[in-house]
Order: sequence, then structure tokens, then C-alpha cells
Amino acid sequence: MHLNDLPTPCALVDLDRLERNATRMADRAHALGVRLRPHVKTHKCVEAARIQTRSHFGGITVSTLAEARGFAEAGFRDITYAVPIAPQKLTEVVEINSRIDRLSVLVDHMVTISAIEEKARSHAIVLPVWLKIDCGLHRAGVDPESAAALALATRLQNSVDIDFRGVLTHAGQSYDAVDREGALAAALEEHAVTLAFLERLAKANVHVPETSIGSTPTASAVENLDGIDEIRPGNYAFFDVFQNAIGSCTLGDVAFSVLAAVVSVHPEEQRAVIDAGALALSKDPGPTHVDPDCGFGRIVTIEDQHPLPGLRLTSVSQEHGEIEGPGTAALRPGTQLRVLPNHSCLAAACFGNYQVIRGTEVVDEWRPLRGW
Amino acid sequence: MHLNDLPTPCALVDLDRLERNATRMADRAHALGVRLRPHVKTHKCVEAARIQTRSHFGGITVSTLAEARGFAEAGFRDITYAVPIAPQKLTEVVEINSRIDRLSVLVDHMVTISAIEEKARSHAIVLPVWLKIDCGLHRAGVDPESAAALALATRLQNSVDIDFRGVLTHAGQSYDAVDREGALAAALEEHAVTLAFLERLAKANVHVPETSIGSTPTASAVENLDGIDEIRPGNYAFFDVFQNAIGSCTLGDVAFSVLAAVVSVHPEEQRAVIDAGALALSKDPGPTHVDPDCGFGRIVTIEDQHPLPGLRLTSVSQEHGEIEGPGTAALRPGTQLRVLPNHSCLAAACFGNYQVIRGTEVVDEWRPLRGW
Repeated sequence: MHLNDLPTPCALVDLDRLERNATRMADRAHALGVRLRPHVKTHKCVEAARIQTRSHFGGITVSTLAEARGFAEAGFRDITYAVPIAPQKLTEVVEINSRIDRLSVLVDHMVTISAIEEKARSHAIVLPVWLKIDCGLHRAGVDPESAAALALATRLQNSVDIDFRGVLTHAGQSYDAVDREGALAAALEEHAVTLAFLERLAKANVHVPETSIGSTPTASAVENLDGIDEIRPGNYAFFDVFQNAIGSCTLGDVAFSVLAAVVSVHPEEQRAVIDAGALALSKDPGPTHVDPDCGFGRIVTIEDQHPLPGLRLTSVSQEHGEIEGPGTAALRPGTQLRVLPNHSCLAAACFGNYQVIRGTEVVDEWRPLRGW
Repeated sequence: MHLNDLPTPCALVDLDRLERNATRMADRAHALGVRLRPHVKTHKCVEAARIQTRSHFGGITVSTLAEARGFAEAGFRDITYAVPIAPQKLTEVVEINSRIDRLSVLVDHMVTISAIEEKARSHAIVLPVWLKIDCGLHRAGVDPESAAALALATRLQNSVDIDFRGVLTHAGQSYDAVDREGALAAALEEHAVTLAFLERLAKANVHVPETSIGSTPTASAVENLDGIDEIRPGNYAFFDVFQNAIGSCTLGDVAFSVLAAVVSVHPEEQRAVIDAGALALSKDPGPTHVDPDCGFGRIVTIEDQHPLPGLRLTSVSQEHGEIEGPGTAALRPGTQLRVLPNHSCLAAACFGNYQVIRGTEVVDEWRPLRGW
């Protein structure tokens, strides 16, 4: 089938681009001397994760227990759930962990460690746990310079109920960068904070088995990862308008897009409406810190994904995407357009299936995992 | 089951509040002398639509063909698809229309009318069509003062392939209101523009069978609808933080919320993180024109939905919701919180099922329709 024949709105995954993005990051990880544990939250899709892990050890990172469950069922055996674990989720963690080599969880609080120990003891097992530190994002993670960080690491090392996997962080502040240099600065911070914490722990006789860092912007920019064991970028599988704006990729690298159809045209006011709104593209505002007029996605040609600068997607409501610009003069009800989303992770999560294309031919359909 | 025992994040529908909201709007419509054709895009759920249509004629409004398909299968027989129809969707429209009394579509362009006529002729049927006019939102709909509007209405009236249902509009500009007075102004505009267009059409000997208007803000504010046949509010089933900010409801009326669990706490910085992020609440920025600090939802008590002003949901990323405020001192990993979303239509669409509660007891589970 030609992609023009697909119903709209629909999600397109460009397999050539996905494979190219995956190979490039896998090669980067090899060159940097680190393992690649891709974050699969961007696509939540077994087929894409298999492509991403091709030349690496097969470990993945997930953002929900639904992903952990689904990827475990599909044969992935080493999974890190990279959101600090809520104690009430431990029953399911134990269940999934028992079926694979390892479902590792993150902690940044003593209450959670106690809950994990209690759960592990009640099942007479040992649970794999990472210590999450904050390298500057100030979201989750313990401050690595705090007394609490040292106490948590010591407790994890000494716990008989816990398999202490190591120290993990995520420089999400790289998304505040305005270019590749800014992302590199975040990468250096992520790296340096981790190494400084290792040194501090070494002085306190805490041995850290492994270190895990990374995001797509930092993993794309960094040139040296001495002392680091693995990286966990995720968005690079698809990339998006945001990653392009901060220098992680070109627009030509973006492997996820949304096919839409024009439903209303008002050429006299240089306006039109497409059938892809907030439920197909998300309401992610995009890289407004780089381009205040970025709108809600970039409109590109159907055939070869070239930007159409005469069309700007200025607003989205539930099922309407509003387009402005002189390019609207060429639109009619039914005209198809292709939109590169601001944030592919959020846009992809809108869809129950992805139409997989090579060029303009639909070659497969993939079903992402959803929910929690 | 008590709602505390639900896994997080999950969607809660408060049945008492939903029924109260539904009854109030149904009674308003009766008092105003109009039919109620609720827009079901907010919940996309058969059970909720049945409650909303209890004392009315049973017609509904949908935003996708997936909703049309699903509600037709569930026994709804008079459905309006309230986004201008893309010509390539007509094959499915014909199919659904053949199984119920009427699946009506919207047009605002001659190209679309021609496509409908061609499709109707090829099946030897007549298709029900509304003319969508723009009463000030400037999204879809033809300018009712334009020559095009008159030409479209004349064509619809005279077409042997089309059952001209009437004139339809939606004052979405009511969402720019800062209070109930502003919403009332939008309602008066919606009403007046429609009546003026009817008068213009009457002079041109175009008879308009019916008129359909409405949004939750305008339907909640308006006091007279002489000359109007039906209203199509939708959000009122659930309401949300936005509707509260512009005066459509109290916070106590909000019937949809998200149950979340704390996963990370940083009391020294008055910060915490919950497991409900952009994929559970959407990234809808909320009523920033009324309250620039509204954040991404309102945190309320689990038991009785009272606001907790010491906790502000300041940021959302994919699976993290970041909370700030002095109330974080009382939080621990595992603490549950309940969040009223900024925009219930977008938040509800994140979930594959709703946990239906009366008070704090889970009494049912509903499965909304998804996709297109």
C-alpha cells in the first residue's frame, strides 16, 4: 500500500530512518566504550527495540510497568524501570523480575529501600536496585553531595535483600540547550557529577558496580565517557522537531511523523484545518526557547519529508490542527500533509498502531504498548 | 474496592458528580426549549453518553469516526460527526450511516459537497449534511457573511443527493473568556450570528430545517435560545480546572480525576514527583489567561476532592509530574494524590479504562473508544 491510501490521522514510522538512527547510536556507544541500554518509552514497541539493541547486549530501559511486562513477554531479559519505584508497585516488580534475568528499579529515598527489602525478604529473593542521583535536572534523584546520598549508597551496598546495581542519572537539563554545544555542556555535567560521586563513595568504602547515564541530546553530543558503563538514550530512535532544534539531529533524521488530511480551508485568511489535533500530536509546545514560533509540529512533503515553510501549524485543539501561511492557498479539503511532531514520545503515545513505511510504501504495522 | 487500592496512575470517573452534571445540563436544555445532543468526545464512553441522553432524544455528537462506529454499535442511532468531513472518509460515513438512522456530517466547502454528492449518487442514497458556519472562533466553518456561505446553503438545499439538516456552529472562543460574563458574551454572539445568517438565508429563499449551536461554557451561561433547535455541549459531563477558571462550574463539580502516587520527595527544596505525567494528564497548559500559575492540574484530597493549595503541579514530562510547595513536607514515596486535570477531554483520552467511583468505592470500570 502507498502511504497516501492510509486513513488519517495515522502514525508513520520510517523504517530506513529508524534503522539509520539506531545504527548511528549503537556505533557511537561502541566507539565510546559503553553499553547501550536504549530507553524504549519513545516508541514502546518490540520491533523498534529489537532494531535498537542489534549490536548490543539486549538490555533496555522502560518508563512504565506496562512496558516492562510487555517487553519481558517479548523476550527482553534485562530491563531497567527508570522512574523511582513507588512502594505499591513492588508486587508487580517481583512478579516480572521472576520471569526474566533482571527487572531493576530506581530509588532515591530510604523509605523505598525499606519497602524493597521487606518485599524481597517476604519472597526470599534479592531485588536489583539502582541509586538515582540528580545531576542537575532537579526532578527525581538524590543530591549526590548530600549526606542522604552517601547513606543511601551505603545502605544499598550493605543490604542482603538488594542486588546493588550501581549509580544512575539522567541529564534532562540537556533539553534546555539551544544547540549542540549546550547539550555537550549538559553531557559534561552528567559525566562529571557521576564521577565525582563515585570518588566520594570510594572514599567511604562504597563500591559502585556500574554507572548508567544518558539522554538523547547528551549521548549525541558527548565525546568521552571514561568511567561510565552504559548509556540510556531513547528519543534518538525517532527524533523530532525538538531534538532538531537543539542540535541532536537533522529534520531528515526524524523517523516518526503523522499523516493528516485537510478538512477546512480559508485561503482568503491564509488559514486551513487538518484532522490531526492534540490527540494525534500532543500539546507539547516544542522548542519555544530556540524558536518561539515553532508551533505544534513541522509540516513536510508527503513523499520526501521536505519542510514546507509556507505552512505553520499554529494551534491544536482535540481533533483540529490549525495551519497558517501562504502555502494554504494550494490546499483543498482532502489534501494530505505530513507532520513531524514537536515531541515524538508524546505523539507516538497517541496511537494504537504505527504504519511502518519504507519510502512511501507501507511495509508493516506495529502495535505499541500502552497504559501503565 | 476502595480507590486507594487502585494501581497508579489511573483515571477516576466520579459517578455521582457525572450524573449531577448530566442532569443539570439536561434540565437546562429543557428549560431553554432546545434538544440536547451531547458531544461525547470528552469521555468517548457509551455508559456516560447513556447518562447524558437520559431525558432527551438520544442524539449525540462525536469527534472521530471511531466514536461514530463505536456508538453506532452500542445502539446510538442519531449521530453528528462535528469536524468538517474529509472526502476520503466518506466511504466509512456511508457504511455507518446505513446501519443507523443518521450519521450527519459537516461541510464548509464546495469541494466537499461535490464529493458527498458523488458518493451518495454512487450508492443511490441521500446523505445528511450540516452547513458549518464560523461564529467567531475562526477555526473551521464558512464566514456567514460571505458570498460562499450563501452559495453553500443554496447548493445544500437544492441537492437531490443531500438531506440538508441545517446550520451548525460552535463558539469555541468562549474558552478565551475569563469568567461567566465572558462566556455569556460568546454565547450571545453564537446565538446572534446564527439568527442573522438564518435571516439572510430566508431572504434568499433558503429554508434552514434546524440550527445547532453550543459549547459547555456558552451552554452553561446562556439564558435564552429562541430560534435554536439543539445544543451540543460536551465537556460538562466531566468539567475540569479550565471550566472552573472561566466560570462554567465549581471545582466540586469536576467528575474526572487522576489518581497518582508520589515516587520522589525533596522536602528541603519543597519538591516532589508523582507518577502522573504528560501521558496521564496531557500537556494542556490550562487556563493561563486567568491564572498564569495554574500549572498542569489541581491537586486535591483523595477522599473528598478538596483543593490542597500547598501543592502545585508545576511541570509534567512523559511519566513524571513535578510538584512544588510547602505541602510536599507531608509527602513520602507511595503517598497517593488525586489530580483534577486542566483539560479533562485530553486527560481522559490518555487512558484505556476509567475506574468508576461513588465516593471512594470503585463500582465499575468503563472502556472508552480510542483512535480514529
